[in-house]
Amino acid sequence: MSDFEELRQKLIDFRNERDWEQFHNPKDLAIAISIEANELLEVFLWKDFKEAKTEKVKEELADILAFCILLADKYNLNVRDLVLDKIQKNAEKYPVEKAKGTAKKYTEL
Amino acid sequence: MSDFEELRQKLIDFRNERDWEQFHNPKDLAIAISIEANELLEVFLWKDFKEAKTEKVKEELADILAFCILLADKYNLNVRDLVLDKIQKNAEKYPVEKAKGTAKKYTEL
Amino acid sequence: MSDFEELRQKLIDFRNERDWEQFHNPKDLAIAISIEANELLEVFLWKDFKEAKTEKVKEELADILAFCILLADKYNLNVRDLVLDKIQKNAEKYPVEKAKGTAKKYTEL
Amino acid sequence: MSDFEELRQKLIDFRNERDWEQFHNPKDLAIAISIEANELLEVFLWKDFKEAKTEKVKEELADILAFCILLADKYNLNVRDLVLDKIQKNAEKYPVEKAKGTAKKYTEL
Repeated sequence: MSDFEELRQKLIDFRNERDWEQFHNPKDLAIAISIEANELLEVFLWKDFKEAKTEKVKEELADILAFCILLADKYNLNVRDLVLDKIQKNAEKYPVEKAKGTAKKYTEL
Repeated sequence: MSDFEELRQKLIDFRNERDWEQFHNPKDLAIAISIEANELLEVFLWKDFKEAKTEKVKEELADILAFCILLADKYNLNVRDLVLDKIQKNAEKYPVEKAKGTAKKYTEL
Repeated sequence: MSDFEELRQKLIDFRNERDWEQFHNPKDLAIAISIEANELLEVFLWKDFKEAKTEKVKEELADILAFCILLADKYNLNVRDLVLDKIQKNAEKYPVEKAKGTAKKYTEL
Repeated sequence: MSDFEELRQKLIDFRNERDWEQFHNPKDLAIAISIEANELLEVFLWKDFKEAKTEKVKEELADILAFCILLADKYNLNVRDLVLDKIQKNAEKYPVEKAKGTAKKYTEL
């Protein structure tokens, strides 16, 4: 069994034991991802990144990933495949010869 | 090789071919995760979730996951382990007998 | 007429001319504020703040403020009063003698 | 004195009494706005908007507005004028005859 499949199953079990699927419609899961992403951001607020606590980064990253896996599950999306597909698309949007060494958005390249 | 290790390596290769590590300090990666999370939110804006396009959900989820994997890599964190650790912690914060069927935060249980 | 009252009326007129109130339930307005806040964040992504373009900061700030004023209107809240009330509350949470020169959250003071 | 000018002065006084300007570079202020916007979103998470508590909406709106006013001040922007300018621009992006009754983005009209 793959990593993602293992995590997906554990997260679904956790959710179902608590009868939480009723709250997890895709729109609220997307809201939850944004909220957790901002709890991660708060770890860095008013600071240089070197002062941020790794333990907190780790916990907030876990929350974001958990909700991403649960949202992917709602659409029967395979997490590995969707990231691989996006890397492929981004390789076209950001060809090495144009994108090398610049942080510009593809619309400005 | 695990799924995450495969994705991590491909994302690092993609980044390094474009010489982008110089931009990827942890604070900016956290900002990028929040921005992508909000591009995902935009797919649901002013709509019932049923009207949201799966293809767009898929692409935005991929961007969030990619930046999460790159940020985890900055701290040498193993993505599988950090999610498993958090499930364990949340099981303590949200015991089944208290959390079942309610969307309340653990601070209010 | 106060500034806020002037802006509120112009924003409500803009919305009503387009028959958009049907989309503006408070939850979606809150989502819109987060999305606009992240468009503002994108102006600073991968950059030192000195490289951010003032014109873009200005436009994104306007979008955030507009949705805040529209959301306040939904609850019949007076924008001036709610900010003044919060300054009062924050003065209690962050007394000068404890908070001076530190970026710590009040829960850690 | 206008509402905004009154709020701006009170917020600057509050900040200066605590010697906080050192933390308030524009990039971190933009991060703070996103974090506060997501605390507002959390008021609506897993809920119909009717269940959200007005008192919490009010407090989070105040935090967002306060950081917006402080960021505008960094660029010497007049809050009233920037919202009025944006209403003007949006009137061009969303002409009544095209935008009426639809939630589509201007790029799709």
